Amino acid sequence: MPDSPNPEIGFDVPARVGMALEEVQTPCLIVDLDAFEVNLVRMRKLADASNVGLRAHAKMHKSVDVAKRQMEIGGAIGICCQKVSEAEVFARAGFDNILITNQVCDPVKIDRMAAFCHPDKRIICCVDDIKNVADLSAAATKHQAIIECLVELECGTMRCGVRDLDVLVKIAQAIEAAPGLKFTGLQAYNGRVQHHQSFDDRKGVEADVVAMSKNAIAALREAGLSCEIVSGGGTGSFTFEADSGLFNEIQCGSYAFMDADYGRIENADGQRFDTAEWQNALFLWTSIVSTAQKGRAVCDAGLKVQSVDSGLPVVFDREGLVYTQCSDEHGIIADDAGILAVNDKIKLVPGHCDPTCNLHDWYVCVRGGKVEALWPVSARGKAF
Amino acid sequence: MPDSPNPEIGFDVPARVGMALEEVQTPCLIVDLDAFEVNLVRMRKLADASNVGLRAHAKMHKSVDVAKRQMEIGGAIGICCQKVSEAEVFARAGFDNILITNQVCDPVKIDRMAAFCHPDKRIICCVDDIKNVADLSAAATKHQAIIECLVELECGTMRCGVRDLDVLVKIAQAIEAAPGLKFTGLQAYNGRVQHHQSFDDRKGVEADVVAMSKNAIAALREAGLSCEIVSGGGTGSFTFEADSGLFNEIQCGSYAFMDADYGRIENADGQRFDTAEWQNALFLWTSIVSTAQKGRAVCDAGLKVQSVDSGLPVVFDREGLVYTQCSDEHGIIADDAGILAVNDKIKLVPGHCDPTCNLHDWYVCVRGGKVEALWPVSARGKAF
Repeated sequence: MPDSPNPEIGFDVPARVGMALEEVQTPCLIVDLDAFEVNLVRMRKLADASNVGLRAHAKMHKSVDVAKRQMEIGGAIGICCQKVSEAEVFARAGFDNILITNQVCDPVKIDRMAAFCHPDKRIICCVDDIKNVADLSAAATKHQAIIECLVELECGTMRCGVRDLDVLVKIAQAIEAAPGLKFTGLQAYNGRVQHHQSFDDRKGVEADVVAMSKNAIAALREAGLSCEIVSGGGTGSFTFEADSGLFNEIQCGSYAFMDADYGRIENADGQRFDTAEWQNALFLWTSIVSTAQKGRAVCDAGLKVQSVDSGLPVVFDREGLVYTQCSDEHGIIADDAGILAVNDKIKLVPGHCDPTCNLHDWYVCVRGGKVEALWPVSARGKAF
Repeated sequence: MPDSPNPEIGFDVPARVGMALEEVQTPCLIVDLDAFEVNLVRMRKLADASNVGLRAHAKMHKSVDVAKRQMEIGGAIGICCQKVSEAEVFARAGFDNILITNQVCDPVKIDRMAAFCHPDKRIICCVDDIKNVADLSAAATKHQAIIECLVELECGTMRCGVRDLDVLVKIAQAIEAAPGLKFTGLQAYNGRVQHHQSFDDRKGVEADVVAMSKNAIAALREAGLSCEIVSGGGTGSFTFEADSGLFNEIQCGSYAFMDADYGRIENADGQRFDTAEWQNALFLWTSIVSTAQKGRAVCDAGLKVQSVDSGLPVVFDREGLVYTQCSDEHGIIADDAGILAVNDKIKLVPGHCDPTCNLHDWYVCVRGGKVEALWPVSARGKAF
């Protein structure tokens, strides 16, 4: 076997800059740069209009290049991450204002977080357990760092966060009193409501989120604690947080790329998100590998290049084709009219962008049918 | 930020050799080496007893180290891969007898495959389209290689493969006549039947698989074509193929690690696979990050470290704990008795091993509560 067969065609990268889209190896992720930039500019305007800061959630794309454009074009004031190892990738790339929208409890992870926030980075994490405060404080002190902390309010996701306001206030007071820590405010994020299809359903749930947040902020204020940051909201709900007069930061991620699950939800006028609100900018590029069975084509995009937890992917912009089944390395596309032939390539809109992006090493960025750039999925697999 | 904070604790690896399991960073994949080796030896004995060759499917684990042990301890005669880029990783590591259990149609992939099978590697792929034959032949000729081909019979998966035996024979004849190609036999694999819980259901479907394969082999023989390899069978069905007198190779993968979905299926005596047949050797090691809500604990193993396409993971060997919900970075564990505390670590049996392994960079191999080795997931993400 030669050392480098076909050195010009690397299996470590799916494309080269300048290549036509049709030549790009499958399966891989395509970013439509025009659509991506439209989404960035639109979100900047919406955040500006509501006078809230967009802290773009980098857990969605895990890419330094995407996050840079969210800052430069998209008006983001900083980023969110979900894991310490993920945040570290962004900190090393120069991001200096990062909210870890999650509890950091493990001693190794706390130590690592404290190490990288010193001396010039603003690192904020969430707390829902009073015992966690001493551990965070010890690490911050050891590294001569300041770790900023939001107390997390449980407001409907039933995941992390505290519901009892007395407990919430006690945690906030402990943070405020602890060396090396700073009480910075409140996180109230309802993950479940994001994907409710009906606008009115989301509106109803969000009324509760806002009411609960209002009570929490009042309880903290009564204890003499003011919230510099009140953070929440995702792509499906952020308008409610932004218009609440309470939240001053929103945490949206999926708006930049969109996916099939978010595409189906409706705006206030009953229009689909993917037609009236946000453009599909992320695609799974796939080839047909078999048409041996009449009425169906088999493509090369299965479970190892996408997550189907929120539904199957949707064939983009091709009439009469439906992705109907997903196995490890294959997808079945119903094709009654026999349109597809072996080696044809089509675009799929992934069902759920976050865990799909996390499976890939590269974004192939396309404009006008040509590859304009290759961006690494910089924090792919960073789950610690 | 220091260049290498805590250099002894790398976030690129979850553990060090010699570490106690309790110290291993979460979330990560754990391989119980004792259980893994029991599975390998058991499968070797079963294959030997039925006089079939085990061609272990490396798509499941994507690890050179796992595959080496399947050869050395587990009696495998070679390996299967599902993608050319995956096969290339194993070929470069010295594996010289690889069946790609899939169609290879894209010109770049065909060229790459032909390049790495020359001059000393046995590479076999599947064909279900007569037009594919000329492309394979041209690449084999260009690289002075021999590509061996199995014709693929559609036998119930309704994915790739040909049902019409006249078409199947014509493809086989075209292969046999094509320069650079060799007709090597038949692949007949029913992917769907593997996971049927009832033994009798699997037995009924497999009777059809065997009957269809028998007819295909007879039709090929009538055309003067003999099958050196007849390959099929997976962890849920291989005993039927092995005892058929027709198949001489089986393609099992999951037997080595097991998962929750295979664990539920039953053997001929109505006993679960994970108690009576195979040992759970693969675990997702996860930490509790929040117990703020009564009756539930939140762990750090979500969709980015596992695939839930075949059901949620199962808590291993801990009474009263049930993994009930999975979001991007979190799992909810019902814990009515309040057993779990923050930073407790537990083992989960993943719902589906193949796409779960593909999310990780490392297997942390444990014996007697200590880390014995770290094996890279060598072909992780190799989807081309």
